[in-house]
Amino acid sequence: MNQPPARTAQQRRQDTLRRLRDDEDVWVATAAAEGGAPYLVPLSFVWDGSTLLLATPAASPTGRNLTATRTARLGIGPTRDVVMVEGDAEPLTLAELPDAEADRFAAETGFDPRRMEARYLYFRIRPRRIQAWREANEIAGRDLMRDGKWLVD
Amino acid sequence: MNQPPARTAQQRRQDTLRRLRDDEDVWVATAAAEGGAPYLVPLSFVWDGSTLLLATPAASPTGRNLTATRTARLGIGPTRDVVMVEGDAEPLTLAELPDAEADRFAAETGFDPRRMEARYLYFRIRPRRIQAWREANEIAGRDLMRDGKWLVD
Repeated sequence: MNQPPARTAQQRRQDTLRRLRDDEDVWVATAAAEGGAPYLVPLSFVWDGSTLLLATPAASPTGRNLTATRTARLGIGPTRDVVMVEGDAEPLTLAELPDAEADRFAAETGFDPRRMEARYLYFRIRPRRIQAWREANEIAGRDLMRDGKWLVD
Repeated sequence: MNQPPARTAQQRRQDTLRRLRDDEDVWVATAAAEGGAPYLVPLSFVWDGSTLLLATPAASPTGRNLTATRTARLGIGPTRDVVMVEGDAEPLTLAELPDAEADRFAAETGFDPRRMEARYLYFRIRPRRIQAWREANEIAGRDLMRDGKWLVD
């Protein structure tokens, strides 16, 4: 195993914030309200400093699951350098999202849910828990946020 | 949008089989049996030509969810070149997996569940549905397997 040394908590937080700011896509895992059916799909996102903003058709599995359960688990980054986010999901209709945010979403992601034929919803994801790890030696110390509060400065 | 032309179904199947053979990790989405709680984590896998083999602690969220629900949704590849798999999950104890498969798993993934302190389970994932797409122009035609049968030769 040629693993570099485990990063400090401070470094992991810095790397995590950079990834939230610069990455374009997130793996979005949701579950049906009943029956134990998982769903997973990659979606574009933007980060406003404290929440992630996604958009997906209201009638898609992800749209229905998030509307029903209000919870998501997100994976950002490649599998050997991950940021995992558990968050509360707030659905917002096209009319409910402020224009400035919708404009920014369209500019940064290159797609504008307001111009789609299908009915889209935005979802604001507020992290409750954030973890970050690369390889096995970073499993210890992977918790960076719990209950919506950063554990490191 | 500078998208290359959409791949043919045959090309997508070839690319998918190459990724199943050569990729090391898979995003594994599962759900709790009740309550709509999703889970997501990247895990190492090996492909035997028709099923994926994973291993995770029996007591982990993924281990508990797969044991209870017997279903997973998997994402393989980067977010702009994905293979999505919906599959049936069969739990196998360390004693139940044939030695040759356990040896191959350890050799290919670099970790051997038989040597871990925590109690691990293997899970054999048999795809029911496989989809593959890169960008928006490949959403149409993304279904490559349904009900466990390839739709393309």
